[in-house]
Amino acid sequence: MTTKYKIVLIRHGESVYNEKNLFCGWHDAELSQTGIQEAVYGGQLLKKGGYEFDIAFTSVLKRAIKTLYLIQEELDCHWLPVVRTWRLNERHYGALQGLNKSETAAKYGEDQVQVWRRSYDIPPPPLEKSDERWSGRSKQYADMDQGMIPACECLKDTVERTLPFWYDSIVPAIKSGKRVIISAHGNSLRGLIKYLDNVSDNDIVGLNLPTAIPLVYELDENLRPVKHYYLATEEEVKAAQAKVAAQGKAK
Amino acid sequence: MTTKYKIVLIRHGESVYNEKNLFCGWHDAELSQTGIQEAVYGGQLLKKGGYEFDIAFTSVLKRAIKTLYLIQEELDCHWLPVVRTWRLNERHYGALQGLNKSETAAKYGEDQVQVWRRSYDIPPPPLEKSDERWSGRSKQYADMDQGMIPACECLKDTVERTLPFWYDSIVPAIKSGKRVIISAHGNSLRGLIKYLDNVSDNDIVGLNLPTAIPLVYELDENLRPVKHYYLATEEEVKAAQAKVAAQGKAK
Repeated sequence: MTTKYKIVLIRHGESVYNEKNLFCGWHDAELSQTGIQEAVYGGQLLKKGGYEFDIAFTSVLKRAIKTLYLIQEELDCHWLPVVRTWRLNERHYGALQGLNKSETAAKYGEDQVQVWRRSYDIPPPPLEKSDERWSGRSKQYADMDQGMIPACECLKDTVERTLPFWYDSIVPAIKSGKRVIISAHGNSLRGLIKYLDNVSDNDIVGLNLPTAIPLVYELDENLRPVKHYYLATEEEVKAAQAKVAAQGKAK
Repeated sequence: MTTKYKIVLIRHGESVYNEKNLFCGWHDAELSQTGIQEAVYGGQLLKKGGYEFDIAFTSVLKRAIKTLYLIQEELDCHWLPVVRTWRLNERHYGALQGLNKSETAAKYGEDQVQVWRRSYDIPPPPLEKSDERWSGRSKQYADMDQGMIPACECLKDTVERTLPFWYDSIVPAIKSGKRVIISAHGNSLRGLIKYLDNVSDNDIVGLNLPTAIPLVYELDENLRPVKHYYLATEEEVKAAQAKVAAQGKAK
């Protein structure tokens, strides 16, 4: 297999919800100060590697959009077309959104939280439409078919709603020769990686993407992966992955 | 005439080229610190007025894109679709780009500079393709038909290349009920205003838009203007206009 295309995936920097150890999902949390620094560093890694892009894809959540903006700042490419879509949003965490991960673990047991966080097809408790956290109250989903707004998602749900955007929008961009960067979230990116590398349901839940470290996928002419690698040292990647994996443990 | 639609036009905040009194045009100058503050204030004026948007249009120049971003920050709407186009770029200032306005006035005479700045159909000297400032060297125009990249533009040229974007992209968005904001430049906005208000060639050159003060156009069902107004006090508008008008005078 010969590399014909390169795409870059990047998970947003730490948000203030990560920082406070809260379930975030579709809640539109800001980047934390650490997250801002991570995104700038991610941009610097791309610049050092000589990466350039022709189009960017991101979610409608500001932590991914701002991570991308900070990368654009480093690469001096604010003119890049940026396509925003709810299909690249983080997994919807249902009624857990806004709850403290440690407290939730203390209340339901760490095992139950791990099931909700790490099972492929068991969704967390749903958010009711009457709940003030219901995503249909957010302006960014006003144009959506309201029946499509999730009450909660398991990882399987997230994968299934992310992939249509890959097929319909990202693939045509890649095939037309555009150099693509995707700034998104832990679980929407798991969806893409699961598809690209044909990862099993069991294995994908154990994949912890580090925040804001560019992940390069080289693809052949049929868009099948030739290889992938992070633009950082192994130590940096492991430290960042360990930090993400530690979230949700009772403290 | 009854108002059916409202659109907002905003000229980017001061750039470092404005600050240094250099002809800017398609040079991709940064916002100055003053310009950043102006953009934030513009966003606050929109927020105070209760304005919301469904789509944003801007140029491929970062001073307009960043002005929009700072407004989005104030309005908490980073999820907004943002369409970037060279057709909303500033007028191309040809061989004057990067030159000091006062020095140019001292060299060619203030009258000649005023002709280049304020005539409707007399272009400044062209930029040669061999010049390191030639816009074709910039990545954001790589996908353009290279014959479409201007060597220089008079205001008439700018108006004529801006309007197709109005007709083809902005009008359909307005007609579909989307609330539109356009973050652009002194001369591309003059083009839109000339068309909307049927301003004469002579009068349009005397229109000095203040930087980063939202200009609201109320339109009827046929997209003809009912009225327009700035979201600022008359004093604020006059002070900002005077500042812009003073540029280019020999010091």
